Amino acid sequence: MKTVTCTAPVNIAVIKYWGKRDTELILPTNSSLSVTLSQDILHSKTTISAAKEYSQDRLWLNGKEEDITKNRRMHNCFRETRAIRKAMEDKAGATGQPIEPLSTYHLHVCSENNFPTAAGLASSASGLAALVFTLSQLFELTISTSEISRIARQGSGSACRSLFGGFVAWEMGEEADGSDSLAVQVAPESHWPDLEALICVVSDAKKGTSSTAGMQSTIKTSTLMNERINQVVPERMEAMKKAILQKDFQSFAELTMRDSNQFHAVCLDTYPPIFYMNDTSRAIIQLIHEYNASSPDGQLKAAYTYDAGPNAVIYAPKKNMPEIIQLIGHYFPSNKEPSEFFADPYRVAQGTKLGEKFIPHPNFNENVIPVQPAGSVSRLLHTKVDDGPRVLAEDESLLNAEGLPKRLA
Amino acid sequence: MKTVTCTAPVNIAVIKYWGKRDTELILPTNSSLSVTLSQDILHSKTTISAAKEYSQDRLWLNGKEEDITKNRRMHNCFRETRAIRKAMEDKAGATGQPIEPLSTYHLHVCSENNFPTAAGLASSASGLAALVFTLSQLFELTISTSEISRIARQGSGSACRSLFGGFVAWEMGEEADGSDSLAVQVAPESHWPDLEALICVVSDAKKGTSSTAGMQSTIKTSTLMNERINQVVPERMEAMKKAILQKDFQSFAELTMRDSNQFHAVCLDTYPPIFYMNDTSRAIIQLIHEYNASSPDGQLKAAYTYDAGPNAVIYAPKKNMPEIIQLIGHYFPSNKEPSEFFADPYRVAQGTKLGEKFIPHPNFNENVIPVQPAGSVSRLLHTKVDDGPRVLAEDESLLNAEGLPKRLA
Repeated sequence: MKTVTCTAPVNIAVIKYWGKRDTELILPTNSSLSVTLSQDILHSKTTISAAKEYSQDRLWLNGKEEDITKNRRMHNCFRETRAIRKAMEDKAGATGQPIEPLSTYHLHVCSENNFPTAAGLASSASGLAALVFTLSQLFELTISTSEISRIARQGSGSACRSLFGGFVAWEMGEEADGSDSLAVQVAPESHWPDLEALICVVSDAKKGTSSTAGMQSTIKTSTLMNERINQVVPERMEAMKKAILQKDFQSFAELTMRDSNQFHAVCLDTYPPIFYMNDTSRAIIQLIHEYNASSPDGQLKAAYTYDAGPNAVIYAPKKNMPEIIQLIGHYFPSNKEPSEFFADPYRVAQGTKLGEKFIPHPNFNENVIPVQPAGSVSRLLHTKVDDGPRVLAEDESLLNAEGLPKRLA
Repeated sequence: MKTVTCTAPVNIAVIKYWGKRDTELILPTNSSLSVTLSQDILHSKTTISAAKEYSQDRLWLNGKEEDITKNRRMHNCFRETRAIRKAMEDKAGATGQPIEPLSTYHLHVCSENNFPTAAGLASSASGLAALVFTLSQLFELTISTSEISRIARQGSGSACRSLFGGFVAWEMGEEADGSDSLAVQVAPESHWPDLEALICVVSDAKKGTSSTAGMQSTIKTSTLMNERINQVVPERMEAMKKAILQKDFQSFAELTMRDSNQFHAVCLDTYPPIFYMNDTSRAIIQLIHEYNASSPDGQLKAAYTYDAGPNAVIYAPKKNMPEIIQLIGHYFPSNKEPSEFFADPYRVAQGTKLGEKFIPHPNFNENVIPVQPAGSVSRLLHTKVDDGPRVLAEDESLLNAEGLPKRLA
C-alpha cells in the first residue's frame, strides 16, 4: 500500500473566469488570473492510497463516502493521471527496471476542507487541485506543474490555478483538445510579500445560481459578453501581469475592482439575470470606494473582489490592513465571540476593539453607509499570498493503516 | 393677464436612456422608448401666467419659491418658447394683425407633483414636460408636439417622451444642434389598452447617484457601454417598436426585462460602480421570473423594469394584474393601512386580502424568495397606459387672481 497526503490552496481571481468554450474539456472563453491565498487558514487536504488489495475506487469527502463513479469530473482526473503512470510503467518495464504497477491498483481517496463548504468559498478549486496534485505525487509523475494544472482543469476549471503559489494565470489556449489551456505562474509568492487579503464572509439566506450553469447562461444570453471576452479581458490580462510584475498596487487595485464589477455586470445582463452580490456586498464596495476616495495622498488603499457569491475578498498592502479591519469591524459589527468572528494569524488587529467607531482619515465621509445589522458579515479571515500545494508527512494521513478514514462525519 | 394650467404624465422607459453625447443640449448616446402612464394617478401640474405688470419671472415648485435664474435647464425652455412666440408676434405685426406681446412679459410659474418627489418616481420628466407644454399653450405656439418635445428635451432629456400618450420613442438624432433629437409617438394609448402597469415603490435608506452624474460616469468608464450604444440598443429599438405595433406581449416583456437589466449592468460596469437596485428590487425580479417560468402555457405573464432607483414597474396584460397584485402583496407585506399602501383605481384587487398566501400556478415554487420584511415595498400603484398632456379648466389654476400661488408649503 502506498499513501500520500497533500494540501492545496484556495485562489481568488482578480481577472475573472466566466464561460466555457468547451464544457466537456472545461476550456474557458477567456484567460484569467488569480492570487493564491495561504493554506495556513484555508486549504483542501487529500490523502490517497493505492493498494493491490483494494477491490474498488472509493471516495470520502468531508467524512462522508460518495459514489466516485458518479463524479465524472473527478473520474477524468483519475483517467488522465493513471494513463501517464501507465506509460511510465510500460517504459520502465521495457528498460528492464520495472516500477510498481500503481496504475492498475484501485484507489482510496479521502478529502477534507478546513473551512465550511457552505461559506461560499471556492472549495471546488482547492479540492480538485489537492486531488490531482496528490495523484501526481502518488504516481510520481515526471511532468511539470503546468501539465498537472492541465489535468486539474478538467476536474474544475479554476482548480488549475491552485497548483501554483503566488500570482497565477490560466492561459485559455487555442487548441481544440485543450492541450494549451493551463496555468502558469506569473510571479511566486515571494515576489510581492506586501500584498495581503481580508476575506469577509457575508451571510446570505439564498443559494445563488451554480457557477457551472450560470456561466453558460451568460454565454448564451448576454449581449455584452462578447465585448468582454474579445476586447476587455485580453487587454486586462496584459495590464494585470504588468501591475503584478511591477508591484504596482494602484493598477492592480483598479483592475481588480473593475473586473469584479464587470463579471457581476455580465451576470446581470444574463437572461434571466444572475445575482451573486447582496446589499451587504454592495455596502462593502461603497465603503472601500469611500476609503480610497478620502485617502490623503490620493492613492488607492484597498481593492475588493467578489466571486460567484456575496463574500468580499479585500486585497491591500500590509500597512493598510489594520485600518481596513477596524473599518469593516465598525460598519459590520459581529454578533459572535471575537475568536469565532475574526481569524487574524498575523495579529495585525491586536489591541483594537472591533466594532468601535473608526474614521481612517479626517475627510472620510462616515455616513457613506449606515452601520449594518450585527452579523451581516459573519466572519473575517486575514490572510496573505502564499505557496502552492504541499506534501505532508505520513502522520498527517486522513486514512488509517487499513486505508479507511480516521474520521467520519 | 393670461393664465394656462396643464398636467403632464410620467413615462417609464422600456428601452433605457443612459448617456449624453452633448450635455449642454441634452443629446443622448442612444434612442429610447417609453410607455406613458395615466395622469389619473401620477402627474405634474403647472400653471403659468403672463402679465405686463409682473416685474420678474417667478417660480414655485411644490409650494416653495425657487430662484428661476439658477435653473439653467428651465431657463433654456423659457428662451426657446419665447423666441418662437416672438417670431409669431413679429409676423403677426407685419401682416397688420398684431397679437399680444406675451414674449415680452414676465411669467409666474407654479408647479406641483401629485406624488412625493422623494418616492423616486421620475418627477423631472413630467415636471419639465408640463412646463414646456403649458408654455406652448400659453404662447399658442403653432408647432407640432414633436417640436415641443425637442424643447422639453433641453429641460430634462426624458421629459420629451412625456409630451405624447401611449408608446413614445425618443429618436436620438444625428445633428450636432439637436434639431432631430425629439420624441415621436409609436402608437397611441388606444392601440393597446390591454397593457397595464403596477408600480412597486421600494423603500430605500440611501440616496443613489443622480442620473445626470451617473450616466456621464458610465460613458467615461464602462468598457461595455459602446457595445450597448452601437449594437444592442439600435436592434432593440426596432424589435420593441415591432412588438408594440403587433401588441406582442412576449417580445415586449423579454425586451423590457433585458433592457432594464442591461442598463443596471452598465451602471455596475461603471467605475466606481453605480447601484440603483437593492435586495428588495432583486427579490421582485426573482419573483417575476418564477411567475413567468411556472406559467402553465409557457407564456411570459409580466415584465419588470427599473429606472435610476429601486422601484419596480411591472407591465402586464390586464387579465394577469389581479394575481400579480396578490403575489406582490403576499411576498412584500405592507405595514400600513390598505388605502395608504395600495392605489387601485381600476379595482382589480377588489375582495382580495393582500398579504394572504397566494400561489398563482400549481408548479410555482413558493420558496423562490422568502416573504420579505413588512414595508420593504412601501406602496403599490396600479395604473395603465394613457394620454399625453392635458389642458385643464380655469378653476384648476394653481395661481390666484394676483398671480400668486393659492397654496404654499
